[in-house]
Amino acid sequence: MNFADRLIAAIKAKNSVVCVGLDPRLNQIPACIIDKAVAEHDRTRKAAAVAFLEFNKGIIDTVKDLCPIVKPQIAFYEQYGSDGYWAYEETCKYAQEAGLLVLADAKRNDIGSTAAAYAGAFLGDVDMFGGEEVGMDVDALTINSYLGLDGVKPFMDACDSHGKGIFTLVKTSNPSSGDIQDRVTVDENISVAELMAHFVDSWGSDLIGESGYSSVGAVVGATYPAEAAKLRKLMPTAIFLVPGYGAQGGGAEDVKPCFNEDGQGAIVNSSRGIIFAYEKVEGPADGSHYAEAAANAVKEMNEAINSVR
Amino acid sequence: MNFADRLIAAIKAKNSVVCVGLDPRLNQIPACIIDKAVAEHDRTRKAAAVAFLEFNKGIIDTVKDLCPIVKPQIAFYEQYGSDGYWAYEETCKYAQEAGLLVLADAKRNDIGSTAAAYAGAFLGDVDMFGGEEVGMDVDALTINSYLGLDGVKPFMDACDSHGKGIFTLVKTSNPSSGDIQDRVTVDENISVAELMAHFVDSWGSDLIGESGYSSVGAVVGATYPAEAAKLRKLMPTAIFLVPGYGAQGGGAEDVKPCFNEDGQGAIVNSSRGIIFAYEKVEGPADGSHYAEAAANAVKEMNEAINSVR
Repeated sequence: MNFADRLIAAIKAKNSVVCVGLDPRLNQIPACIIDKAVAEHDRTRKAAAVAFLEFNKGIIDTVKDLCPIVKPQIAFYEQYGSDGYWAYEETCKYAQEAGLLVLADAKRNDIGSTAAAYAGAFLGDVDMFGGEEVGMDVDALTINSYLGLDGVKPFMDACDSHGKGIFTLVKTSNPSSGDIQDRVTVDENISVAELMAHFVDSWGSDLIGESGYSSVGAVVGATYPAEAAKLRKLMPTAIFLVPGYGAQGGGAEDVKPCFNEDGQGAIVNSSRGIIFAYEKVEGPADGSHYAEAAANAVKEMNEAINSVR
Repeated sequence: MNFADRLIAAIKAKNSVVCVGLDPRLNQIPACIIDKAVAEHDRTRKAAAVAFLEFNKGIIDTVKDLCPIVKPQIAFYEQYGSDGYWAYEETCKYAQEAGLLVLADAKRNDIGSTAAAYAGAFLGDVDMFGGEEVGMDVDALTINSYLGLDGVKPFMDACDSHGKGIFTLVKTSNPSSGDIQDRVTVDENISVAELMAHFVDSWGSDLIGESGYSSVGAVVGATYPAEAAKLRKLMPTAIFLVPGYGAQGGGAEDVKPCFNEDGQGAIVNSSRGIIFAYEKVEGPADGSHYAEAAANAVKEMNEAINSVR
């Protein structure tokens, strides 16, 4: 089934467009988890990986009915090498088994033959000694399309053949995003981000589902609402992945322009503001209230966004 | 010690600018390695990872005196999950122990706080329960700078503090690279690739070593020699990582514009043309001549390039 249709159905079923960013940082994982992991594995990479997975499971268990999708950012896991990568894979599996869609945030990009390897690794099949087996088999992947169409095509093919989705960087949430993305190009008198938006609209045209939305989505930061409004018009059928909410400064009013008139067309991510919400509320010293605090943060964020979309 | 100085010293010591791309594909690994891996681990991800590592070790052993640097492309390893990631880490370690510099080809990119996690994972330190330990600790990393300066800064910091290097995508070798990179921007009337070149020149200015070269390098494809000549002038102190030689169609004359008058300023990568050279030469049916064939391919490529630089 088309990824966009699956995502829209999950959004409607849960009445939530919140995407929970699973970006664990060892120094913010509660003591109740760290102590156990260190007792079992000493202060090793394996202990860090075990702690990440345990932490994520707690979050997933409490947020699974409150949001349609989670987005683990792979950088935090790669810090702990192959052990961290294992925690990443297990986190994705656990979330899918809990009924959540999983968006791997890895911003992969390369020339076609290498992009095909990434597409197989995350969204499609890999060669297993002449047979084919699924790779990580997550539901969607973030990509960076600086290399142009032939670096994106293998991901689009995986979307088509495996019912997966991609979100390509268009206008990112960070302060320097304008260095390249805001530059105006001569031919069309539009910015690089707007040019990328035209590509997204074109690339996604063959992957539009019954919901009217496409499995080729766009990353559009909550921190630039005026630009988001322009981009919304340029990519009417694209689902926006909107980072920058919460810790990066974006609020509910800032994400409003990312939605279409039907109240759909965007998922809004928050990572630190949700998973480490426990640091800002009263609770036991070992932090064992972290999952409950995360669920409350999701509810609060969801209400704020549902009131404007 | 400054990465650029280490690379230039290795180039001079070995009289070679060849970068060997370690991009293993399971269906092209010789039978002598596949059969052993499958006998020990069945047709599993672990078997694929073990085969990749064994294959790479053979290549590394025969090319270590013929080239200054190797470039394992992480996509091919990620296909086999955490097992593949393990093979990647072990390959990097083995190559460094053999006296080779290692350039991790991963084209990482994200906002600052996440880029810092990638920088720690590949080039710097990671938090290990309050203490700091080195991450993968390779010598250099490819990055994609579509997000602008604040997404690059954490990598530059790791270059400075740990003597590492980065190569950012400027003009890539693939057919669609012009989709974004060739667009002319209004302000300076230069292409996006040339704008990126200006950034690379500026970002690298504080990381220039005694060799006169900077640890902030640029990816410039061999497939666009006219553009390479322009970019060479815009980034006089940057070392170019030049893909596109061999399998992608670039030859020795095509890479000539990537060098400065001192005969330095570039490393030229070939992956398939070297590591799978054995498929095109006579040898035993089990492919056990693959490492020797790779060494011969490196020698041939090196002679061709040394004759023009």
